[in-house]
Amino acid sequence: MDVGVWLVGARGSVATTVVTGAAALRAGLATPIGCVTQGPDFAGAGLPPLDRLVFGGHDIASTPLPKKAEELSRAGVIPHPLAELVRHDLEAAEAEIRPGIPAAADTAHGQAALARGLARDITDFRERLGLARVVVVHVASTEPPATPHPAHQSLAALTAALEEPGEVLPPSSLYAYAALGAGCAYVDFTPSTGVSLPALDELARERGLPYAGRDAKTGETLVKTALAPMFADRALAVRSWSGTNLLGGGDGATLADPAAGESKRISKERSLPGILGHPVEGRTHIDHVPHLGDWKTAWDHITFEGFLGVRMSLQFTWQGCDSALAAPLVLDLARLMARAHERGHAGPVKELGFFFKDPIALDEHRLQSQYDLLRAWAGTLA
Amino acid sequence: MDVGVWLVGARGSVATTVVTGAAALRAGLATPIGCVTQGPDFAGAGLPPLDRLVFGGHDIASTPLPKKAEELSRAGVIPHPLAELVRHDLEAAEAEIRPGIPAAADTAHGQAALARGLARDITDFRERLGLARVVVVHVASTEPPATPHPAHQSLAALTAALEEPGEVLPPSSLYAYAALGAGCAYVDFTPSTGVSLPALDELARERGLPYAGRDAKTGETLVKTALAPMFADRALAVRSWSGTNLLGGGDGATLADPAAGESKRISKERSLPGILGHPVEGRTHIDHVPHLGDWKTAWDHITFEGFLGVRMSLQFTWQGCDSALAAPLVLDLARLMARAHERGHAGPVKELGFFFKDPIALDEHRLQSQYDLLRAWAGTLA
Amino acid sequence: MDVGVWLVGARGSVATTVVTGAAALRAGLATPIGCVTQGPDFAGAGLPPLDRLVFGGHDIASTPLPKKAEELSRAGVIPHPLAELVRHDLEAAEAEIRPGIPAAADTAHGQAALARGLARDITDFRERLGLARVVVVHVASTEPPATPHPAHQSLAALTAALEEPGEVLPPSSLYAYAALGAGCAYVDFTPSTGVSLPALDELARERGLPYAGRDAKTGETLVKTALAPMFADRALAVRSWSGTNLLGGGDGATLADPAAGESKRISKERSLPGILGHPVEGRTHIDHVPHLGDWKTAWDHITFEGFLGVRMSLQFTWQGCDSALAAPLVLDLARLMARAHERGHAGPVKELGFFFKDPIALDEHRLQSQYDLLRAWAGTLA
Amino acid sequence: MDVGVWLVGARGSVATTVVTGAAALRAGLATPIGCVTQGPDFAGAGLPPLDRLVFGGHDIASTPLPKKAEELSRAGVIPHPLAELVRHDLEAAEAEIRPGIPAAADTAHGQAALARGLARDITDFRERLGLARVVVVHVASTEPPATPHPAHQSLAALTAALEEPGEVLPPSSLYAYAALGAGCAYVDFTPSTGVSLPALDELARERGLPYAGRDAKTGETLVKTALAPMFADRALAVRSWSGTNLLGGGDGATLADPAAGESKRISKERSLPGILGHPVEGRTHIDHVPHLGDWKTAWDHITFEGFLGVRMSLQFTWQGCDSALAAPLVLDLARLMARAHERGHAGPVKELGFFFKDPIALDEHRLQSQYDLLRAWAGTLA
Ligand SMILES: NC(=O)c1ccc[n+]([C@@H]2O[C@H](COP(=O)([O-])OP(=O)(O)OC[C@H]3O[C@@H](n4cnc5c(N)ncnc54)[C@H](O)[C@@H]3O)[C@@H](O)[C@H]2O)c1
Ligand SMILES: NC(=O)c1ccc[n+]([C@@H]2O[C@H](COP(=O)([O-])OP(=O)(O)OC[C@H]3O[C@@H](n4cnc5c(N)ncnc54)[C@H](O)[C@@H]3O)[C@@H](O)[C@H]2O)c1
Ligand SMILES: NC(=O)c1ccc[n+]([C@@H]2O[C@H](COP(=O)([O-])OP(=O)(O)OC[C@H]3O[C@@H](n4cnc5c(N)ncnc54)[C@H](O)[C@@H]3O)[C@@H](O)[C@H]2O)c1
Ligand SMILES: NC(=O)c1ccc[n+]([C@@H]2O[C@H](COP(=O)([O-])OP(=O)(O)OC[C@H]3O[C@@H](n4cnc5c(N)ncnc54)[C@H](O)[C@@H]3O)[C@@H](O)[C@H]2O)c1
Ligand code: NA
Ligand code: NA
Repeated sequence: MDVGVWLVGARGSVATTVVTGAAALRAGLATPIGCVTQGPDFAGAGLPPLDRLVFGGHDIASTPLPKKAEELSRAGVIPHPLAELVRHDLEAAEAEIRPGIPAAADTAHGQAALARGLARDITDFRERLGLARVVVVHVASTEPPATPHPAHQSLAALTAALEEPGEVLPPSSLYAYAALGAGCAYVDFTPSTGVSLPALDELARERGLPYAGRDAKTGETLVKTALAPMFADRALAVRSWSGTNLLGGGDGATLADPAAGESKRISKERSLPGILGHPVEGRTHIDHVPHLGDWKTAWDHITFEGFLGVRMSLQFTWQGCDSALAAPLVLDLARLMARAHERGHAGPVKELGFFFKDPIALDEHRLQSQYDLLRAWAGTLA
Repeated sequence: MDVGVWLVGARGSVATTVVTGAAALRAGLATPIGCVTQGPDFAGAGLPPLDRLVFGGHDIASTPLPKKAEELSRAGVIPHPLAELVRHDLEAAEAEIRPGIPAAADTAHGQAALARGLARDITDFRERLGLARVVVVHVASTEPPATPHPAHQSLAALTAALEEPGEVLPPSSLYAYAALGAGCAYVDFTPSTGVSLPALDELARERGLPYAGRDAKTGETLVKTALAPMFADRALAVRSWSGTNLLGGGDGATLADPAAGESKRISKERSLPGILGHPVEGRTHIDHVPHLGDWKTAWDHITFEGFLGVRMSLQFTWQGCDSALAAPLVLDLARLMARAHERGHAGPVKELGFFFKDPIALDEHRLQSQYDLLRAWAGTLA
Repeated sequence: MDVGVWLVGARGSVATTVVTGAAALRAGLATPIGCVTQGPDFAGAGLPPLDRLVFGGHDIASTPLPKKAEELSRAGVIPHPLAELVRHDLEAAEAEIRPGIPAAADTAHGQAALARGLARDITDFRERLGLARVVVVHVASTEPPATPHPAHQSLAALTAALEEPGEVLPPSSLYAYAALGAGCAYVDFTPSTGVSLPALDELARERGLPYAGRDAKTGETLVKTALAPMFADRALAVRSWSGTNLLGGGDGATLADPAAGESKRISKERSLPGILGHPVEGRTHIDHVPHLGDWKTAWDHITFEGFLGVRMSLQFTWQGCDSALAAPLVLDLARLMARAHERGHAGPVKELGFFFKDPIALDEHRLQSQYDLLRAWAGTLA
Repeated sequence: MDVGVWLVGARGSVATTVVTGAAALRAGLATPIGCVTQGPDFAGAGLPPLDRLVFGGHDIASTPLPKKAEELSRAGVIPHPLAELVRHDLEAAEAEIRPGIPAAADTAHGQAALARGLARDITDFRERLGLARVVVVHVASTEPPATPHPAHQSLAALTAALEEPGEVLPPSSLYAYAALGAGCAYVDFTPSTGVSLPALDELARERGLPYAGRDAKTGETLVKTALAPMFADRALAVRSWSGTNLLGGGDGATLADPAAGESKRISKERSLPGILGHPVEGRTHIDHVPHLGDWKTAWDHITFEGFLGVRMSLQFTWQGCDSALAAPLVLDLARLMARAHERGHAGPVKELGFFFKDPIALDEHRLQSQYDLLRAWAGTLA
């Protein structure tokens, strides 16, 4: 039986790369580079095969997937002539995309009604295509940090409040509420609030559904969490860690807004003190440079002291294509969460922290320790 | 009871920094930054305290330790006015330095006689100062790869051959032979041949002595083994890894000789295929730039492919002071090996692979896995 | 006859390095690395020799020069044991430092009275030491951009307004007003408002005095104006130029204030469109990283298009010691301005644009063209 | 009347990009980014327009131009779908390519016969297409430094020697000899020996033909000659300049051969001492990294001293596409040389030094001074 992957933000760069890539893999036009779960450590975990994944989703943009894929081809994210070769699959996924809920949606009749509409889109997808289950992955534009609301604290309060007019949940959390309501596992691929509210944790546990997040770790933070343990293990005293991220694309345009950028910065700056055990000097900048398109350049500058206080430094420059880094992780998360759902896992799956900048329910930020945790957990899924 | 640390290459930059630093720590003039074994993971391992270490050694150079320390002060390796403040300790260690055996030593009467002289220096040091034991650490200039000799294969053959005229062992291995003969644990801090011969392994096991090596991992390779697992765990396909190392100082001058540089290059290039599981394009250069003094700059350039073959890159620039990075590891190794000796460990201590570019008896090159191994082993020493 | 150099901000890092360095050069303890005017192109320009410069100045801080020099020694800006060896000269300059006017000075009796006090300090210095002339160089902390005031537009209006209570001029401009009033050439080494007001230009011309500025070009901008012409001359289309500057020290602490940082950023971003002829994407960050002390690291990332629109990039990392870069330029400017004054130059000396990020009265930002202009002008001074 | 451009190495990356780009410009499918002579400084110089250039050439490889252009499209050097759109022009140029002379050509009948064949190909091209004149540009694979031969010293000796069996000239010089013999201006775009022999200079002067070279300055050396004058003008003391160049492609494969690499290294290392006036420490590496394809990454590390001997550094990383950088310069050189020929210029055109790493007959290596020289010369062509 096929497994559904419902992408919130289905016409974005990440989503388009996911759908194109999955089709290319299925057609034997590409090898699964970047897919963690294709490695031997996951061979016996009972994950749904990549070629059994079926795609749909919500978006508020109107550019159809095949056109977006062409744009990504021109930008060098999707190699020529792949988008053309899998056009049929892109059209199939496009046919499963439904209108989402924008940030400024009319909430005069309460957000519960909106959520019911979203949930209906998902259950309809599952039933119509006869899917074993659906994993919902939020890959929509990053939102600003949400305004706290008392109804975020308990499911009862939330259920009541959503029936009243006015905005109680930001869109990302409304999607999470709808997804769980529709009986789906849920993944926060972005730093938006999403499922990270006590009321939604309650809902997931009540419904016996797994969730995971948040903010996929694909670039600067990935390198950070690989490097920082080196300093810690060697007892070298890191004094400052400064970073500048330059990116264009849709994500860059979104993060150019200081409020949305703030969500990302918070998420990015979490890992370091966690690994080093003490705060360090230095800031993280995120600059929008439209000319870079979907490519991101990150420069990090680290100063540290060695024996007798001698000052040293390490710099790195990362030049990556964000969507190409993110897409295989979406596939990995969909497979792992489908299996977690199948195995009855309820609540946060902390073992997936390996994939995230700001892992829910996990204090371990060291990349390799996170991988060890993931591998061990995969061993229990068999 | 005190523990002796016998440094082969006792008047070099690393050795001088070791002796100065240990004195500064004892006097409360510095904190043990860079000393791995001062961390909580080693608190219960029964290691000899840092202030019970006593220093002596062999060298073929004549600049006395206090003068060398002044030079390192001017070069910024030892902060002002530390060398002056611990002058007394430097003089004490200087008084325990004995003439070593140069590469072109006269071997007309066989190398066994030379080895007996070296061993006598060490046992004399141990007995005169009433030391519990002595750990010999080879921190002398890197030698070219050794010429193979049939007597390297068994202790019996070696013992016989050393009595004959002619060079059977390179100096580093002669020091190892003498150290083991004197009943001491032995550490190969350099890529020289040293203890890495079947005959010497046999000797260590026969005498119940631990040994470890080789080539301390302090700069480019340290970062390499922290970063390479990131690519492996994320299933990203590394295609090339190129490196250029610029360094001055005594070590830089030695490695400017192509033969000695070759030993280092071999050692540096070992880790990568081990971690990635496949060969990659790219070379490692070691350039002598006298103006850099004891500072090393390494630039590494890595290309890799992500999802759908998209090409990305990572570069890093490491600017470190080699002696400041190496010295605390010498102290760590001395403490750990003294304890291993005390606990009766015989043969290679593979759990110390964390410290080395080319770990003896260990195939694990991933830095954090090596640390996990070390920590677990430390737990067994209690 | 000696020439006076009056430093506003006389106890800062730049000023201290200037006084220490001039003394070291006089004593033959150092070579004039970084002194542009010691080159053959200036041999016949009739400049006052370096060893005829005598120092005094204003400051609002109280740490005496010899103590500040020791701090800079510990920080590696002034090599050991130079500060000690020229202690006598530091004390002599310290004896010529007078209290300055802080930003929040009491202006109840009008700023004219304050300016008269400042001018008196300078003329007293000139007369007491029998100096041929005095060049005033503003090297005090950077101020925020000044609030516009109608009296800035003409000397008559300014003269009247300064007699009234209230703040008409920011401190930097009050120093410039006092310096010109005292018959001195004036240099704006910082991006503060200083002499850059129509009323002060009028004063300089009326008094027959030269002035120059502003904001010495010592690091990132220096490299920028050397590199940008390369792209222009080769018809390569620069699309983005992003920069991050990390610095500690007094200057770093000042620029951490967004208002003061803004003055610097404006000054730094001026050169690029001037050279390239069109705006480019990208921002310039200035981050305060206290651990870096007087050392600055700047990373610049440039994207450009070549033939057929192919995208390429250039990155550079500059690691400099700001005070060591600035100090010799202060000496150069003092010598050149003393000569300009002697030769009767009145108003802005645009030929000194080579030294500045935001050259007064000059639109040429290309470094080498600025040098050619300077050299040609030096030829006319003979 | 049209002007011919005869490319030696006509099926290489540079040549293919030249022909494709010229066609794209003519068809209005691209803008002339990177074409120096399209700037206002050259508007009145009477250069032949870009759309009057017609291409042919010699090569020893057999992959036809349209196919090579497709390969460069896949490699990202030529943007999609340009190669397809100008296919007709590629085929036209392909029809004008004639077999060249390989390095190991049979010289049993003397090289004069071979040269006559080459010359005939060129004159046939000129006459058949009714071209005003032909400029020959050598863009074939770099050769090792040539073996000196007495006949290189005079035209008379050379003419005689070429009639004898055996190799007197390397292929690049044989092409130059043939080109001049055919009455064509000649450009050495590579570091090969080419026209740089006294005998060929004599030939050029005798025939009243201009020539220029050598080794186009497109990457690391371009940046070097833009940056080095900054240090000189600021009296900063450069102590070391180290460089590593990583490149794939045909050129990378050629330069992986130590002998050919040596020609390039010599050419690359020439500029620095010329600008700085003194030798510096540091080496230049050229590494073949096939995975990089036609993209080159160069890392340069520079150490310098400032005031009071304080040590600082500058690093840069250049990531460029060599063929895209080289191609517009071929067009520039063709236009400028055609005009120089028309105006009767005979012998080396030193004013074209701006384009070369190792400019013939010119000691000026500073990029902007070279540009000023070029611009002034263009002014005389009107
Ligand atoms: N690419 C990476 O490496 C990476 C890593 C971590 C997190 N992320 C996050 O993934 C998200 C997607 O990145 P992207 O590059 O695809 O961005 P994108 O801008 O290309 O796509 C975002 C998509 O979300 C849609 N969207 C916006 N608001 C919506 C709403 N209310 N409902 C439904 N759809 C909505 C947009 O229309 C757009 O199609 C971003 O939040 C980004 O921060 C990406
Ligand atoms: N510093 C690091 O980070 C680091 C890391 C790994 C390995 N190493 C190795 O440590 C060694 C020491 O480095 P260093 O910077 O102190 O070098 P150094 O040149 O300053 O010191 C080497 C010392 O060894 C002495 N020596 C040479 N041959 C000898 C012999 N036959 N017998 C006795 N002494 C001899 C020399 O006289 C000198 O005093 C080198 O082999 C280096 O490759 C250093
Ligand atoms: N170092 C460089 O490369 C460089 C380049 C360009 C410009 N500058 C400018 O030079 C200035 C000095 O830099 P620094 O590193 O010496 O800074 P610093 O903070 O070490 O010194 C500034 C000095 O100015 C004094 N000061 C502050 N307000 C004053 C006032 N109102 N009157 C008199 N003195 C006052 C302070 O007390 C301090 O002693 C800064 O404005 C900096 O932006 C420096
Ligand atoms: N691309 C740049 O930025 C740049 C800069 C300076 C110099 N160059 C030089 O330009 C040359 C061409 O570079 P490329 O990247 O096009 O290299 P390439 O390897 O792609 O092309 C070289 C061509 O020369 C041909 N060739 C080899 N020997 C020949 C011979 N004896 N006669 C005729 N043709 C012959 C080859 O068959 C090939 O088609 C190289 O020498 C390179 O060093 C290039
Ligand atoms: Na091993
Ligand atoms: Na100006």
